Amino acid sequence: MSAPNVATSRAVLAAVGPPVTLARTWLRRPPVAPPPPRRPMSDALRARLATVTDLQHAAAVLDWDQETYMPSGGAEARARQTATLRRLAHEALTSDETGALLDAAAGALGPDAGETERALVDVTRRDRARALCLPAAFVEAQAAAQAEAMEAWKHARAADRFADFAPHLERLVGMAVEEADRVAPVVAEARGPGYAPTDADRRYDALLDLYEPGASTAEVAAVFDELLAGLVPLVQRVTARPAPDASFLHATYDENAQWQLSLDVAAALGYDGARGRLDRSAHPFSTSFSAADCRITTRVDARFFPTAFFGTVHETGHALYEQGFPPELDRTPLAAGASLGMHESQSRLWENLVGRSPAFWRRWYPDVQRRFPDALAGVPEDAFVAALHRVEPSLIRVEADELTYHLHVLLRFEIERALLAGTLAVRDVPEAWNERMRQYLGIVPPSDADGCLQDVHWAMGAVGYFPTYTLGTLMSVQLWSAMARDLGDLDARVAGGDYAALLGWLRAHVHRWGRVRTAGEILHAATGDRLSAAPWLAYAEARYDPPAR
Amino acid sequence: MSAPNVATSRAVLAAVGPPVTLARTWLRRPPVAPPPPRRPMSDALRARLATVTDLQHAAAVLDWDQETYMPSGGAEARARQTATLRRLAHEALTSDETGALLDAAAGALGPDAGETERALVDVTRRDRARALCLPAAFVEAQAAAQAEAMEAWKHARAADRFADFAPHLERLVGMAVEEADRVAPVVAEARGPGYAPTDADRRYDALLDLYEPGASTAEVAAVFDELLAGLVPLVQRVTARPAPDASFLHATYDENAQWQLSLDVAAALGYDGARGRLDRSAHPFSTSFSAADCRITTRVDARFFPTAFFGTVHETGHALYEQGFPPELDRTPLAAGASLGMHESQSRLWENLVGRSPAFWRRWYPDVQRRFPDALAGVPEDAFVAALHRVEPSLIRVEADELTYHLHVLLRFEIERALLAGTLAVRDVPEAWNERMRQYLGIVPPSDADGCLQDVHWAMGAVGYFPTYTLGTLMSVQLWSAMARDLGDLDARVAGGDYAALLGWLRAHVHRWGRVRTAGEILHAATGDRLSAAPWLAYAEARYDPPAR
Repeated sequence: MSAPNVATSRAVLAAVGPPVTLARTWLRRPPVAPPPPRRPMSDALRARLATVTDLQHAAAVLDWDQETYMPSGGAEARARQTATLRRLAHEALTSDETGALLDAAAGALGPDAGETERALVDVTRRDRARALCLPAAFVEAQAAAQAEAMEAWKHARAADRFADFAPHLERLVGMAVEEADRVAPVVAEARGPGYAPTDADRRYDALLDLYEPGASTAEVAAVFDELLAGLVPLVQRVTARPAPDASFLHATYDENAQWQLSLDVAAALGYDGARGRLDRSAHPFSTSFSAADCRITTRVDARFFPTAFFGTVHETGHALYEQGFPPELDRTPLAAGASLGMHESQSRLWENLVGRSPAFWRRWYPDVQRRFPDALAGVPEDAFVAALHRVEPSLIRVEADELTYHLHVLLRFEIERALLAGTLAVRDVPEAWNERMRQYLGIVPPSDADGCLQDVHWAMGAVGYFPTYTLGTLMSVQLWSAMARDLGDLDARVAGGDYAALLGWLRAHVHRWGRVRTAGEILHAATGDRLSAAPWLAYAEARYDPPAR
Repeated sequence: MSAPNVATSRAVLAAVGPPVTLARTWLRRPPVAPPPPRRPMSDALRARLATVTDLQHAAAVLDWDQETYMPSGGAEARARQTATLRRLAHEALTSDETGALLDAAAGALGPDAGETERALVDVTRRDRARALCLPAAFVEAQAAAQAEAMEAWKHARAADRFADFAPHLERLVGMAVEEADRVAPVVAEARGPGYAPTDADRRYDALLDLYEPGASTAEVAAVFDELLAGLVPLVQRVTARPAPDASFLHATYDENAQWQLSLDVAAALGYDGARGRLDRSAHPFSTSFSAADCRITTRVDARFFPTAFFGTVHETGHALYEQGFPPELDRTPLAAGASLGMHESQSRLWENLVGRSPAFWRRWYPDVQRRFPDALAGVPEDAFVAALHRVEPSLIRVEADELTYHLHVLLRFEIERALLAGTLAVRDVPEAWNERMRQYLGIVPPSDADGCLQDVHWAMGAVGYFPTYTLGTLMSVQLWSAMARDLGDLDARVAGGDYAALLGWLRAHVHRWGRVRTAGEILHAATGDRLSAAPWLAYAEARYDPPAR
């Protein structure tokens, strides 16, 4: 017989006061958290940073819920709740007390201070300094402008009317310039006395630094130029040949079987299911609330095999990174990816260098073929692998193949730089977009909806984000080369299913650092090199345009 | 082809500073919350209370996640995160600024102030005063003692050794006494100058008040005495007759079909699926994050039909209450149940007075029979309904039938009172327990694991919680009678599936008030009566021991 199953934690009630609803939730966990492990850093500073990160992670839980299970009616309250959590995190980080604790910690750092301890102080001080650059009134005005722009963008895209979005983009670009100018001094100080960019690059650096700390716009531009010079002719050579048949990828693939395959491949790659889980969402993403709770989502398309499979492998790469942060960084700002680019290097490494490789399919194809007999029974392994490498210029970035994808990114980067430098007017964005599409990809969007209105980023005011997608991909190959140097024949390991060796190397050379080191520092220590496009170009040519045998 | 699906809200990043993990989550919602509607109350106070409730609701989301989807590895970080959120909620509520805002609001309440406005100030001030009674050091010590007691309880119950739990219970009782003595003045002040309980009742009142604001131990005891006097002989009469066959309830019931039935019955009763959802958890519960997001869980037992069905109907009753709070109470401490007893009155009303009634099954049984043909094909409707009313003294409260359930509650209430009054020593609890089991139910637990160690409540330090289960059940019948007075033949409505009429009445007489009025006030306004056992006894006799026809 059914009986009441509600109880309460008296500690919770006593701490909060009112017997509100949540008091009725059955709480099997202990009512208070165990004390954090003792470490040399000041307890007061540790506690303060724990509060900041707990609030951020709580907001991330609310976001995850919103994208996975929240009923539609919950959206309005949810927006307020996450806004409250993020406001409190901001207040806790920027408070005078936190500043004093950080100053004291900085003063107490002796010459023998550990790298982690030093980074904790330096990174947090920079985060705080950056947050302090923007007055509350500006942040509010920017947030309001972004919210309006988002709505306008949705309508403009649906109606294919760039002109309706243009005034919003204009306003957001103006605000991005203001933000960049406010933040630039902090960025400059972090880079030391030798930092002397052009005025335009100083601005873009200031925005880019949020996603790719320490990166230089000039260096990124140089690397992207090198990439463009090699990639455009490569794509032309590849697409001049007959495209491989990929029609069977659009056959019917049982959704439950796809789901099980997603679970299996994530586990095989080393994703720890006791510290994560897989759910469905409209857009695949990964998120984490601690190194012991790193979740991924995917979506399943019954009529296109790669959607769920590569979505899962991609997000698994992100999650493997976060599951690899060392426990001593827990509840500090250092328990995060070194940069979005470095994060993307992990997802791209597993997605493309492992998951799309012929070696990988040598092991997996027979299994996958058995799981989807209707679709794949008559498809040989090499035809399947070839289909996964079909290259075809197309309009939409998120649907692009492994090669042409970067041409989409490069044109956005160029347009962003020109907008920020004032050398391109917002009203001329469609023309600039279409001209580059023609130059780089040989096609011109028939509409702005399929052109410069396709991405959400600018409507969210995110300038400087796009390049990290390509930066991560370039880094993934540089890391892969270093891994091969250390581990020998990676194809043989992949073909043999020894993903643990790869993961172990990434743990040791990338994951362990969290934000203790910048992406550039991690890359250099692991590979001996600076960021470069050459390794990726060499990989892409070998994979997509091999010399005739 | 898979492509990156991570983006970011620049507003979020700008507000929080570091490009932490959560920045990678795809955010489709606008980056800031819409402004709250304007109301007469001071905006600063509203904003403060919104922060408190947002933090509480965020903690509730984290709790829900923990009980439904969280991977096991996430537990440790989760405990810290919810502890942080609840500490911040406590700090926001008890801060001097909040006190000043509340004092100002109280001073500004004119004679024509609305009831809601007045309650918002009064209720919040009482919550705050209560929270301020307990020094942080005491709350911490209590929480630590509860955490230890919880562990000790688990082991003691598994090993059936009450002696291992006794010292912990002794400590928690001591702390409950201290808490009661600290809180008693606030409770006394809220009750006005006429309040003159015995010393022992003053203590129990102070704890009970947390769950059942305004309730009097003396009155509860008197009502429970009346209940006991009628219930023990009723159970004896009912169990003297041959028990109805209920073996078919233990047949095999397809789990998916049970799940679908749970969804269907919740929707039929009026549960709005756009503002809620059903999930599985080890213990059924309901929780809410706003009136537009009220979730329930259930569990499914493939070999016992009532588990999922009545679990769902019970939790639906709770959720219907919370979906019915008026929008103007949103983000205030008033958007919660008037008391745990009133909350339980809602779940019990739908579970027992509706869901278990012969009238209900007149409509539902043919459908249910079709859904579970293997189990029910040969079972007539009246046999099915009779099985749902099988009464049998048993050891475990949460598995007890509708009648004997309350005998379990009453004995706990008596033991709690005696412990608090100091007339019962902790070491004598097993004897007191077993003696009452013998007197009230005619059976004696063969072990303390099946006796006084069975419930988690005392291990969590919750004293004063148990009586709310029975109070709610008594109230449910009082409300039912008033509803029948206003709506006419309720059985006919239930048999006809017109649950909307019932829900509408509850909305108008109970739900709309949230915490604006106490449970006692709501009950009196709706029924004209004070709390009483007689209506429930009359209902129980009519349902379980009808006069021979």
